[in-house]
Amino acid sequence: MTSTNQKASSGIQQDRLWQRLMDLASIGATKKGGVNREALTPEDNAARQLVQGWAEARGFTTHIDDIGNLFFRREGTDPDADPVVTGSHIDSQPTGGKFDGAYGVMAGLEALEACEDLGIVTKRPLEFVAWFNEEGGRFQPATMGSGVYAGSMDFEKMLDVVDREGVRVRDDLPASLVATAGAKPRAFGSPIAAYIEAHIEQGPRLEIEKKTIGVVTDIQGCRWFSVEVLGEEAHAGTTPNAARKDALKASLAMIHEIQELMDDPSDILRFTVGRMDVEPNSPNTVPARVYFTIDFRHPKMKVLTEKGDKIEGICKRHAGDLPLTVTQTYSVPPTIFNKNVVGQVRKATEALDLPNLDMLSGALHDAKYMNDLAPSGMIFVPCERGLSHNEAESAEPSDLADGARVLVDALVALANQ
Amino acid sequence: MTSTNQKASSGIQQDRLWQRLMDLASIGATKKGGVNREALTPEDNAARQLVQGWAEARGFTTHIDDIGNLFFRREGTDPDADPVVTGSHIDSQPTGGKFDGAYGVMAGLEALEACEDLGIVTKRPLEFVAWFNEEGGRFQPATMGSGVYAGSMDFEKMLDVVDREGVRVRDDLPASLVATAGAKPRAFGSPIAAYIEAHIEQGPRLEIEKKTIGVVTDIQGCRWFSVEVLGEEAHAGTTPNAARKDALKASLAMIHEIQELMDDPSDILRFTVGRMDVEPNSPNTVPARVYFTIDFRHPKMKVLTEKGDKIEGICKRHAGDLPLTVTQTYSVPPTIFNKNVVGQVRKATEALDLPNLDMLSGALHDAKYMNDLAPSGMIFVPCERGLSHNEAESAEPSDLADGARVLVDALVALANQ
Repeated sequence: MTSTNQKASSGIQQDRLWQRLMDLASIGATKKGGVNREALTPEDNAARQLVQGWAEARGFTTHIDDIGNLFFRREGTDPDADPVVTGSHIDSQPTGGKFDGAYGVMAGLEALEACEDLGIVTKRPLEFVAWFNEEGGRFQPATMGSGVYAGSMDFEKMLDVVDREGVRVRDDLPASLVATAGAKPRAFGSPIAAYIEAHIEQGPRLEIEKKTIGVVTDIQGCRWFSVEVLGEEAHAGTTPNAARKDALKASLAMIHEIQELMDDPSDILRFTVGRMDVEPNSPNTVPARVYFTIDFRHPKMKVLTEKGDKIEGICKRHAGDLPLTVTQTYSVPPTIFNKNVVGQVRKATEALDLPNLDMLSGALHDAKYMNDLAPSGMIFVPCERGLSHNEAESAEPSDLADGARVLVDALVALANQ
Repeated sequence: MTSTNQKASSGIQQDRLWQRLMDLASIGATKKGGVNREALTPEDNAARQLVQGWAEARGFTTHIDDIGNLFFRREGTDPDADPVVTGSHIDSQPTGGKFDGAYGVMAGLEALEACEDLGIVTKRPLEFVAWFNEEGGRFQPATMGSGVYAGSMDFEKMLDVVDREGVRVRDDLPASLVATAGAKPRAFGSPIAAYIEAHIEQGPRLEIEKKTIGVVTDIQGCRWFSVEVLGEEAHAGTTPNAARKDALKASLAMIHEIQELMDDPSDILRFTVGRMDVEPNSPNTVPARVYFTIDFRHPKMKVLTEKGDKIEGICKRHAGDLPLTVTQTYSVPPTIFNKNVVGQVRKATEALDLPNLDMLSGALHDAKYMNDLAPSGMIFVPCERGLSHNEAESAEPSDLADGARVLVDALVALANQ
């Protein structure tokens, strides 16, 4: 099969892949060169339509499930065989970049087009997928589409998730489904033979170590929390400290101690307070309500459990008599990818003679949920200064093309196993 | 004169004063029983119209200056004498109460009505005033109307002040001026013989010490700062601490050290971080920008100078290489009120046999700027649990009426001096 695989990667066209990425990035483009394309917005819907148009123009068929995960299929020789799937997502952070997610979907399209161009025949069908709402900025939790598909999240519950304005997934989903009309229905959990996701690293390691391909062996686990502290509005000039119920002061004390708990000289642990809402948010009024989030990640379950379980106690101690709610909004154990899939990615990388290293994924990806359903793996390519979730996110066209070469060779190998 | 003064206070009608306060509170009323009537909003304009209607129905004449300070005048026997003025403001915090400011304006109306009802004759005219934009929640700085009237703030500069949506004072002021049509023009800085402002205490002291009247001798000084820290958006799961530029983490470290600087076991110093804006405010993105405010007050200039001057240095140290802007947005030295006015307030209080104490004002008031222009003083009445800048703000009708009794007697005494 080696010769066929080589042939597939030789069909990857760097310029076509780059142009598709730029075209996709024009939808929801921001002034600073990034993308604002949150799930179920008109921009997200338009991007989905654009990808559908490209796929169908090459004769691939579109399939969609009830939450809007979009699958584009190139048939194999065995009509009954489960497909080998690649893909990622095209929704973005509110101030996201051009490559996070979009690269995995466009690399999937490029892989199928390369096969099509070269007349590569596979036993199993090949599919690329655009998962619904991976980012979770607007509707939490993240990775909602793949989570529901894999059965790890409840479809009905997800429909009732609301954004900051009180809009439910249920309210905006119909317009999104209508945007990709003509797609064939796909049932949640329909079997997948194997899954590979290509993605920018979103961290600095490949760039620092001058490698082109990251062979991803596992994903660190993560726990998300939201904390709400209720204080009491009072005049900033007159109210003595002893009489204050300052929700912000209490919140800052909580975060200060949690930062100490999360201190890690080895710099493996990830701890972020990314969101903080203060009410009434007036300079001369003592804050009456604070809502903040905690994003905590680590490759070891033991660390996630031990440190994560201490968060609520710390918050309680600093809240004193202020009403407090600590909610774990998301919890994902570390993922170990399938040895066969990881092996095929490594084999394709080495056959193409690309500088590579085995690595952990710091970010969560849809591949996490796919790994519960099917043997899965991931391919990382470098991004500039490791920046992601940032409008300045950038990547080299040649690295992106090399990632697609590894991807298509591994996909074809898996589809003919 | 003692008998005349007694006569004036005997005209105060507790029920009329209370009803006027409740009627005024219906404009911009919030579900939680408070008021949202920020400066230059339609609600603020409607409230100004309502007060004008009440005043003119009693034969008082309305005067207005170019920034919208509204004066309501009852003539005296000497047409050339400068007026004795009382008043406060009717704009509110976004989640404010029924009494902050409104009480001083309605007590002023009640004082003039009591004189009218009883046919009290004064040498000097009596006026009550509703100052423009005292709260400063929407347009900073606070006490803008009295500051401009007294010449401490520049009118043209204030016209260019913008709210959070970018609307300038200049844009919304015309609609406010039109709302109170028919008012006679008043020049900024027109002389005032004496000024007394009645206000709820906005602190707990009178209630705790079971006193009805606070004879206010001075106002603590204050310094306001805004701090902007620029970081860099990055993925919360992948970016090592060493590679992060976390604007929120840096801000929290600044605030933590400033809190230590401001620690005051005697609980006289007031330090508040009331507003904090985080961008992009997404749970899994390292914050790229944080804006927060500092409200710092103390009765001693030395403390304001020594501690306030350390704020920027602390911020710089914790900002490291993140771009930082520390701006002092407001600075007001402590105020010492006029001995004659304070004496008249104390005398009226004692003549009415009301439990009282001399006290400091923790909050800033329009009386601060009036004190630069004319001999000034203030009268405090208790409010429940000291709560203010809070929709639950509350006060006893009998305390409010007692404050108006002291006010009218002191006003008449000053108007006949």
